[in-house]
Amino acid sequence: MKADLDDLLRSNAMDALLVIGPARHNPAMVYLTGLLHVSDGLLVKPRGRAPVLYCFPMEREEAARSGLETRVLNWHEFNQTVKGDTVELMARLCQHVLGEQRVTGRVAVYGQMEMGEALGALRTVEERMPQVRFVSESKHISVLGRARVTKDAGEVERIRRMGKVTVEVVGAVVDFLSSQSVAGGHLVAKSGKPITVGEVKRLIHRLLSERGAEDPEGTIFSVGRDAGIPHSAGLDGDLLPIGKPVLLDLFPCEAGGGYFYDFTRTWCLGHAPDDLAAVHELVLKAHQQSLASLRPGIQAMSVQERVCDLFEAQGHPTVRSQPNTQNGYVHSLGHGLGLEVHEPPAFRASVEGQVALEPGMVFAIEPGLYYPEREIGLRLEDTVWLRPDGKPEVLAPYPMDLVLPVRSRRKTSTIRKGKGPGHRAKL
Amino acid sequence: MKADLDDLLRSNAMDALLVIGPARHNPAMVYLTGLLHVSDGLLVKPRGRAPVLYCFPMEREEAARSGLETRVLNWHEFNQTVKGDTVELMARLCQHVLGEQRVTGRVAVYGQMEMGEALGALRTVEERMPQVRFVSESKHISVLGRARVTKDAGEVERIRRMGKVTVEVVGAVVDFLSSQSVAGGHLVAKSGKPITVGEVKRLIHRLLSERGAEDPEGTIFSVGRDAGIPHSAGLDGDLLPIGKPVLLDLFPCEAGGGYFYDFTRTWCLGHAPDDLAAVHELVLKAHQQSLASLRPGIQAMSVQERVCDLFEAQGHPTVRSQPNTQNGYVHSLGHGLGLEVHEPPAFRASVEGQVALEPGMVFAIEPGLYYPEREIGLRLEDTVWLRPDGKPEVLAPYPMDLVLPVRSRRKTSTIRKGKGPGHRAKL
Repeated sequence: MKADLDDLLRSNAMDALLVIGPARHNPAMVYLTGLLHVSDGLLVKPRGRAPVLYCFPMEREEAARSGLETRVLNWHEFNQTVKGDTVELMARLCQHVLGEQRVTGRVAVYGQMEMGEALGALRTVEERMPQVRFVSESKHISVLGRARVTKDAGEVERIRRMGKVTVEVVGAVVDFLSSQSVAGGHLVAKSGKPITVGEVKRLIHRLLSERGAEDPEGTIFSVGRDAGIPHSAGLDGDLLPIGKPVLLDLFPCEAGGGYFYDFTRTWCLGHAPDDLAAVHELVLKAHQQSLASLRPGIQAMSVQERVCDLFEAQGHPTVRSQPNTQNGYVHSLGHGLGLEVHEPPAFRASVEGQVALEPGMVFAIEPGLYYPEREIGLRLEDTVWLRPDGKPEVLAPYPMDLVLPVRSRRKTSTIRKGKGPGHRAKL
Repeated sequence: MKADLDDLLRSNAMDALLVIGPARHNPAMVYLTGLLHVSDGLLVKPRGRAPVLYCFPMEREEAARSGLETRVLNWHEFNQTVKGDTVELMARLCQHVLGEQRVTGRVAVYGQMEMGEALGALRTVEERMPQVRFVSESKHISVLGRARVTKDAGEVERIRRMGKVTVEVVGAVVDFLSSQSVAGGHLVAKSGKPITVGEVKRLIHRLLSERGAEDPEGTIFSVGRDAGIPHSAGLDGDLLPIGKPVLLDLFPCEAGGGYFYDFTRTWCLGHAPDDLAAVHELVLKAHQQSLASLRPGIQAMSVQERVCDLFEAQGHPTVRSQPNTQNGYVHSLGHGLGLEVHEPPAFRASVEGQVALEPGMVFAIEPGLYYPEREIGLRLEDTVWLRPDGKPEVLAPYPMDLVLPVRSRRKTSTIRKGKGPGHRAKL
C-alpha cells in the first residue's frame, strides 16, 4: 500500500522515485497525485521524505489540488534552452528536479512516455549526473508495483464504485436486449431493424460516460465464433443471433484514467444449445470453486492449477496440457487490477503465479472455455477483494445465468430456466 | 505523410522502425495499424520493406484487421521463459522480432510504455544484439514525427469528423446554457437549482460518447478567475455567474485513441463587462489576423510574432516581452494536432517555431489574454488545415460571439449584439 512506500524503497535499495508525465491515464503519477488536469508533471520522492510535484505555470493550481508540495518550473527558460528538442527538454527537467531535491544513488523511474524519447533522456541524465543511476525493475517486484498490489480502503471503495457502475450498465444492456424482438433468427427492434453490436457498444459508452466512467481499453461484445477468441472485440455491424453465445467483457475506469473494474458475462439469447449449456455449467463451477478457495497465503498459481484439473478431467485442453492451444481453456485464471486493468498478481501456472495472496489484493477471476470453430466461447468474470478478515468479496455481484429470455419467443426459449444460480429477477 | 516513411527512414539514416504496445491510445502504433483491440503488439518496419505486426494468439484476428502482414507470437514460450519478469519479456520480444526480421543498424523505437521498464528492456536488447542501436530522436525531427506532421486526405477527413462532433457538442452546450434561467447572479435550472460546471461536463461527456468520441485529456470548462489560468480545468461544484468569462476548451478524439480536434470559445452569460469585451475584440483580431497570414512557406514563429506585436501595441504583456508573465498573453499561438492533441509544428517565438508551414499540416490557432486576478481569461481556438492549394481552412467553423444571451434577462443582456462575426442564429 501507499503507506509502505518508504519501507519498499528501503527493501528494494532505492534512494528515490521519479515519476514523469501527466496526472491522467498514467498510473504511477495518478497513484501519487490523484487525477489532475496536469499534462506535464515531474514527481520526486526521495526515501524518507515527502513527494514534491513539479509543474509548469499554467498548471500551478491544478497541481496544487494534489495536496502535495508543488513547485513551478520556469517553462520559458527550459523552452528557450532546449530549442524544441523534446528529448533534451525531458533530460533537463529530470536533471533540474533531481538536482534540486539532492537525489543521488539508485532511482526507480516511472511514467508512461514515448519510449524512444525516454531512453534518450534518461541516458543523457545518467551521463551528466554520474551520481544517479536509473534502475529498471519488473512490475511484479518494483517499488510501485509492490505498493500497488495491495489496496487501501480508499482504493477499494473506488474500485467498488466502478463495480457498481459496471453492473448498472450491464443491467441496462440486459434490459435493452431482452426488450427487443426476434426475426430471422436475430434480435430486431420493433421497427424490424436488426440490433447490432455497434448499437449496444454505443449504449454502453453513453451509460458509462453518464456515470463518470470510460473504457479506454475498449469493450468486448462479441458473438458466436468471435466469442471463442478471447480478445476479439466484436464488429460494429455484427447482428445478435438467437442460440449463440454473446459475450460482454466490460473493464471501465474512472474518467481520466483512474481505478478499473473488470467483469464478464456470457449469455445466449432465447435458448442455449446443449453443448454451450454444458460449458456454462463447467465454467460456473470453475468460478465458484476458485472463489471458494481464495484466502491469504495460498499461491495464486494453485487456484489456476485447480481450474486446469477441473477442465482437463472433463476432456478440455488447457494451457497446462497443451500450452499453445486455441481451444479449451486458453488463458490464465485472473490478474490483479487497480489503476491498470492488468496488474500483479498473475494467476498463472508459472513462476509468475508463485505469489502468495495477501489481504488487500484486488483481482479478476475469469475462467473460460473456447471453441471458436464450434461457435463456443464462454467466460464468467468477477472482480474480487481479499478483505482484511481474509474473506474474498465480489465487489459487484451480478447473476450468472446463461439464457437471456427475449420477447416473442416460446417457452423453449427458457429451457435452461432454473439451472443458473437463481438470480433471474434482474434478467 | 505515411507514404514518405521510407524516404524519411533514409534521410534520418535509420534502418528500421520498431513500435511497441497497444493499438489504442498509443499514437505511433495507431498511426501504422489503425485503431485495433490489440493490447500487446510489436510492429517492425525495416527500411524498404512493408511493416509486420506481431501479436499474441488471443488477438490474432484483431491484429489481422490492420491489413498488415501479421505473425502470432508463441505466448506460452515467452511466458515460461521470462518467469514473470516484464522487463525481460519486453527485451525478449524485441530480440525475437528484430532477429526474425533480420534488422541491424539504427532503429527508431516508438510506443508509449512505462519508461523504467522500457529503459531496462532496450538496454538489455542492445547488450545482447550489438548489431542493433536504438536511436532517440526528438519528436520534431524523428521519422514518425516528420511523417505525422503532414496529414493525408484520409487523416484530414477523420479530424474534420471530430470537428463536426465538437461543434455539435458545443452547440448543444450553448443551447443548454441559454435555455436556463438566472437567479442570484448565477445560471439556475427551472427548479431554481444552480447549474454547475460538473453538470455541463457530464453533458459534454455524454454527447461525445454518443458520437463515438472521448476526451482522454479532459475538458476545460472554467469560470471567472479559473478561465484566467489556461490549464485550470474548472471544478465540478463551480456555479456559472452572469457577466464573467466562461471558457470551454474541448479537445476530443475518436474513441479508443484516434484523431483529435481542438477548439475553444469563451462566452459571457447575459452581458459582458467592458474590459472583457475589449479583450474579446483584440483576441478575435489576433485570431483573424493569424488565419489570414497562414500560407505555405512562412515560419510558424512569424505568426506568433505578429500576435505579440498586436497585443504589445495595446499594452498587454506577452511571453515575448515578459517571458514568465502570468498576465496577458501567457502561451504560444498554436500547435499541430493529429493522433496527439499537441504535435509539431509549434507556433512559438523560439527555435522550435522556426518551421516553415507546409500544405497538409493541421494545427490549432489559439490566441488568448489572461488576467486571473481581474477575472479575465479569454481564448478563441480553431483547428486549421493548410490545404494542398495553400489556403487555410477551419475544419469546423463556429461563431465567435462573446455574449451568450440567457433567458429572463433584459435587453441589456445583449449589449454586444452585432459586434461578433454575425453568426448569432445558433447562439
